[in-house]
Amino acid sequence: MTSLLRARPAASAAMLAAFGDAALVDAALWFEAALARAEAAEGLISADVADAIARACTSDGIDIAALAEAGAHAGTLAIPLVALLRQRGAARLHLGATSQDLADTALMLQAKRGVALITHDLKALADAAASLAGAHAGTKMLGRTLLQGALPITFGLKAANWALGIDAALARLEREAAAALVLQCGGAAGTLAGLHGRGFAVAERMAAELGLACPPMPWQARRDGIAGLAAALAIVTGAAGKIARDVSLLAQGEVAEAFEPRVAGRGGSSAMAHKRNPTGCQVALSAALRTPGLAATIFAAMPQEHERGLGGWQAEAPVLAELFCLAHGAVLAMRGVVEGLDVDPQAMAANLDAAGVGGDTGESEALLARALAARGLANRGVGT
Amino acid sequence: MTSLLRARPAASAAMLAAFGDAALVDAALWFEAALARAEAAEGLISADVADAIARACTSDGIDIAALAEAGAHAGTLAIPLVALLRQRGAARLHLGATSQDLADTALMLQAKRGVALITHDLKALADAAASLAGAHAGTKMLGRTLLQGALPITFGLKAANWALGIDAALARLEREAAAALVLQCGGAAGTLAGLHGRGFAVAERMAAELGLACPPMPWQARRDGIAGLAAALAIVTGAAGKIARDVSLLAQGEVAEAFEPRVAGRGGSSAMAHKRNPTGCQVALSAALRTPGLAATIFAAMPQEHERGLGGWQAEAPVLAELFCLAHGAVLAMRGVVEGLDVDPQAMAANLDAAGVGGDTGESEALLARALAARGLANRGVGT
Amino acid sequence: MTSLLRARPAASAAMLAAFGDAALVDAALWFEAALARAEAAEGLISADVADAIARACTSDGIDIAALAEAGAHAGTLAIPLVALLRQRGAARLHLGATSQDLADTALMLQAKRGVALITHDLKALADAAASLAGAHAGTKMLGRTLLQGALPITFGLKAANWALGIDAALARLEREAAAALVLQCGGAAGTLAGLHGRGFAVAERMAAELGLACPPMPWQARRDGIAGLAAALAIVTGAAGKIARDVSLLAQGEVAEAFEPRVAGRGGSSAMAHKRNPTGCQVALSAALRTPGLAATIFAAMPQEHERGLGGWQAEAPVLAELFCLAHGAVLAMRGVVEGLDVDPQAMAANLDAAGVGGDTGESEALLARALAARGLANRGVGT
Amino acid sequence: MTSLLRARPAASAAMLAAFGDAALVDAALWFEAALARAEAAEGLISADVADAIARACTSDGIDIAALAEAGAHAGTLAIPLVALLRQRGAARLHLGATSQDLADTALMLQAKRGVALITHDLKALADAAASLAGAHAGTKMLGRTLLQGALPITFGLKAANWALGIDAALARLEREAAAALVLQCGGAAGTLAGLHGRGFAVAERMAAELGLACPPMPWQARRDGIAGLAAALAIVTGAAGKIARDVSLLAQGEVAEAFEPRVAGRGGSSAMAHKRNPTGCQVALSAALRTPGLAATIFAAMPQEHERGLGGWQAEAPVLAELFCLAHGAVLAMRGVVEGLDVDPQAMAANLDAAGVGGDTGESEALLARALAARGLANRGVGT
Repeated sequence: MTSLLRARPAASAAMLAAFGDAALVDAALWFEAALARAEAAEGLISADVADAIARACTSDGIDIAALAEAGAHAGTLAIPLVALLRQRGAARLHLGATSQDLADTALMLQAKRGVALITHDLKALADAAASLAGAHAGTKMLGRTLLQGALPITFGLKAANWALGIDAALARLEREAAAALVLQCGGAAGTLAGLHGRGFAVAERMAAELGLACPPMPWQARRDGIAGLAAALAIVTGAAGKIARDVSLLAQGEVAEAFEPRVAGRGGSSAMAHKRNPTGCQVALSAALRTPGLAATIFAAMPQEHERGLGGWQAEAPVLAELFCLAHGAVLAMRGVVEGLDVDPQAMAANLDAAGVGGDTGESEALLARALAARGLANRGVGT
Repeated sequence: MTSLLRARPAASAAMLAAFGDAALVDAALWFEAALARAEAAEGLISADVADAIARACTSDGIDIAALAEAGAHAGTLAIPLVALLRQRGAARLHLGATSQDLADTALMLQAKRGVALITHDLKALADAAASLAGAHAGTKMLGRTLLQGALPITFGLKAANWALGIDAALARLEREAAAALVLQCGGAAGTLAGLHGRGFAVAERMAAELGLACPPMPWQARRDGIAGLAAALAIVTGAAGKIARDVSLLAQGEVAEAFEPRVAGRGGSSAMAHKRNPTGCQVALSAALRTPGLAATIFAAMPQEHERGLGGWQAEAPVLAELFCLAHGAVLAMRGVVEGLDVDPQAMAANLDAAGVGGDTGESEALLARALAARGLANRGVGT
Repeated sequence: MTSLLRARPAASAAMLAAFGDAALVDAALWFEAALARAEAAEGLISADVADAIARACTSDGIDIAALAEAGAHAGTLAIPLVALLRQRGAARLHLGATSQDLADTALMLQAKRGVALITHDLKALADAAASLAGAHAGTKMLGRTLLQGALPITFGLKAANWALGIDAALARLEREAAAALVLQCGGAAGTLAGLHGRGFAVAERMAAELGLACPPMPWQARRDGIAGLAAALAIVTGAAGKIARDVSLLAQGEVAEAFEPRVAGRGGSSAMAHKRNPTGCQVALSAALRTPGLAATIFAAMPQEHERGLGGWQAEAPVLAELFCLAHGAVLAMRGVVEGLDVDPQAMAANLDAAGVGGDTGESEALLARALAARGLANRGVGT
Repeated sequence: MTSLLRARPAASAAMLAAFGDAALVDAALWFEAALARAEAAEGLISADVADAIARACTSDGIDIAALAEAGAHAGTLAIPLVALLRQRGAARLHLGATSQDLADTALMLQAKRGVALITHDLKALADAAASLAGAHAGTKMLGRTLLQGALPITFGLKAANWALGIDAALARLEREAAAALVLQCGGAAGTLAGLHGRGFAVAERMAAELGLACPPMPWQARRDGIAGLAAALAIVTGAAGKIARDVSLLAQGEVAEAFEPRVAGRGGSSAMAHKRNPTGCQVALSAALRTPGLAATIFAAMPQEHERGLGGWQAEAPVLAELFCLAHGAVLAMRGVVEGLDVDPQAMAANLDAAGVGGDTGESEALLARALAARGLANRGVGT
């Protein structure tokens, strides 16, 4: 599916670019150039040949639509791309590599950019939630359980729960990124054959240039890293979705305790001028519906056949790209919502009063103080 | 995710077009023009106004990228699109309608095209499998259960099983399409208000023009039709995937009983010139991994809030589009594989002989004859 | 997972029994006895032998725990069960059949009972919603879109939407049950071999006795019927979940427009005596979260290997059983909720008034009348 | 679903017990007793009262079936269980706690046992694969990509890939268990109210007794820990499923390079005496089909409402239990398969020879040596 009109509302422009065709071609070209440089450094090809390959590895003159047709026909992107580059005089390009090496490594290069985009906004989202928590440490409201009024809490406590949820999702994403952002370069059967015993040295040089880790063994038939990353992205989205659920419920007309920020032209209705729709929450809730099935797809693809599977790894790349788009879309939307959240403490007080469940929030305040302190320590690397 | 390089291998060019941005804009414009014509016919607006609206409803001059940005900002595509068309002088456009009316009806118009594409190739795939079954009614081979040799069967029986699976998937798709391809036009709160009591008559006229059914009540908060369609598409893909599983296993070098047709430039390897990869099976198996999670997403979105949900229906459209792309990609790939399947009866006989489980296939032949006869009767509308 | 404490809240006692161990053993024994009777009728075994088999096919003295251990060790339930029955003197039992024949047919016998339980309560749920719709044809309330107040509707219209959603889910379930509730009896390689050419006649007799349809060809490697049934169950659950979403939102303290019926001992809190939790909605919403992934599992299992797969069909049976349990749990819970729904028209009027969006609901009333009329016609088989 | 006959083949007896009703009741009783002891230590209740509570907290005389009915009626297990224990004279039991505290903490106590069972067998499985790798460092075989013969590898390299996949899955499970195995005790609205400011101290004491971590803030509305654990279990199962895929393909009659160990009574056929079915692989592949949808369910449940959700957390517990059962079933099955794998180096050599792709595996051997060395270092905590 390539509709920008349907993809853009759920994603960010930056992430669409990170996983767009131009970025994919650039990553593929970098893979080939880095391979050539590493092979030259290991004496497998001459420096001149490597230079010629590097010069061929430019996206100038590459027709994406034609390349897409050719890749679909051939069965892999690498086949027509390598053929095209060789026609430019880079005959020894792709030496010792295979299609999946290019596909997986390019995906990891894009994923690295994707992780950076998400972590940046996740941190800001967590900090915005923590700031709200601090600012509303004493703002009393009705705690609600099973969608029924329960007992008093503070809005600060609710916001702190959001912050801790995002903190945990961020920590997992960083852990999984560290495990997953790894070079794949194994050659035809994943043995690093064909490089006169210098295959591993070539891989180490490539990994260093590309900014990826170098695995003890190629991972073309070992997909847990991608699966862990997919899970982390689904959980990031779920943590953003949790905030969206709360805000959208608080913004109901009869509750009216908190609202998305007013942004000109956002959240209107094509039929009703008076509407102020929770559009950021809509983005995040929609993403939280879509990411679980995508992560499940990547888990389901794990039992791939022998040294390189049939269908499994081909399924992963577009699905992982979608996960990045949805996760960032959700995080960015909720960052905007939380940073500008329009809180009405008087409405909170009135609803709490109407519920008739008392108003003592001493424990909430103590609990919040402890949670924020723990968060501060953790973020400074002191605690856990 | 909008990468053509990652989307195209799994889809068909025709289905990518059917769910592309241009097709979406065309469907949305048709919705608005049909609405205006129906309103004029019911005396709600003048014929001149309707003509002016129809003239405004052209995709000429619509900048997809700008529209995508504006739609993402506003929260729905309809808001900037309607604004743009009104700027063209079509002030009374969209009268009595709301964003989701446009979104859902446009999706159904695209889905109608999608169903037509898939049914066309599904029928051809089923017929190709049935032809294989007829041609190999007496071709003995080893039946395999739990991936172990079992007893003799005929290749005809195996191919007939493929045909029946596709027949059943096609019948379900047609049933679900009949239930789902329905106009959505309910206005702001789904009540058909704002049209002076002529709302239902307007809807009936629109449905007739657009070639969709007219529901007894708008369905913006009743999503079973979309869910049924999603399920049918996932099952279509699974039935194609079943054939792909069998062919890919038969094509293993040690089995070597059947192969995808030789197509120049298809199924090669970027590293090994001797490879003949089962690329069609790869497409179908990859699709069969991806569709289950997408269908699950649409099921999960069903419990939408009140008269129009938040996040649920926004999640459905891109996911349904993806399901159409993957289902058609799988069907088309396997149509090519089955139509040109390269069967080696001698290898089948040799493997059967080596298994030492006898060679009587009388019952297989009788069973096949009965199945093909039943299929023929069903296809002529005589039996079930 | 076999915890009754965790399974029962989500299921009904009747459905747990329908898919319990005793029911499974009974179904398996019926399969074997019916096979023997059919074989005797076709002259394959003597009437005396068939009688002896039928006498052996009693659950008396079958130790479920021991059978479960033995089945897990052997890899199929049929192996130890058949061995046990043969020890009882039924030496020729299971003639021409194989493990999956017993497993699939027993599952379909259980599914038939499951479908009957669900359709019974689905009809009652739809009727209860339609009754509510009729009773509240003129009850004005605030229509809500994207969780924000929109325009006036009637509560009757909302309830009619529930009824139509359940009607559609019921129709699909009946369609899919008709396609899926089919005998499986194909023997070792699915060819009906080993019965001297009488295999199909035996199958027809068995199907008649067991109350299942007889397929043109055994379906052990063609799983679309089970997949269609799984989809129908997930959609039933989603339609029930839609009602639960609405009721739980209406029951919020600040909205207070409708509540689950008061039932002694239901919906309390272990910590707060004042709580009246929407427990029926909780059951249905929980089920609607769980069924999508289960249906996806069954779709994912479709590409099974050759004449009988490895892992796929073994995954389906427990998952389909879970789908039946969850679907019925949700339907039964919402039947109770809708039949006894505690509606507060005054609160509806007050919230509508407070929203300041007017109060004309003429179109809602006309639309409702049309929808209920269409429903009545459809239920009498007149319309669609 | 509570059928032992359908649950047992996919699970282990030990894990079924760990998540059985008796274990759940024991965990719930321990929660209550530990709460009372912690409250006594903090001076909230007397030591005598705590002793009386602890004496009441015995499973003697608890009727599971009746408790399941009562819990289903009430909406939570805690309500009837607490009522029953109070009838035993433990009037002040459950002070400051709520239903979800008991439910979540009991689930975590069961999960802790589940993690221990899985990690034990995962380590053994990884070691068995590594031993195979060492033993077959020089065993040449055909490397296969896209289900086609590619180039020579060693069987040692294939087995090392299995070992690294299991190692990584184990490391993730341990990370996620550390993050998830946390006490939940927050009281009615998750504020630790009602304990005179001693709530956090009580929680710390409880956590210490129960062997769980104590969170900075209760997590009843923050479900990332459970989601991370679910993901880790799905990935464990996928890593086991990868081995199962390879073994089942190698065991095909035409390939015949490796087989599951012969175990009396395992892998037979109810119809064909000559069959040796890969039953362990069947268990693992079936589990790998089922876990993705279950993990997706838990991701989908994350956006829970306010301070305690409706339907979400109720969905998680049975699903997480199922994930533990399936993951352990898969791991245990593949541990048996890999520990006793019946490898045929001559068949490997013959198939490699027949493929005509040469036989040099020097790089494979070097790569394997490096991978095993890295694994050894990692396991000794030296490297990564």
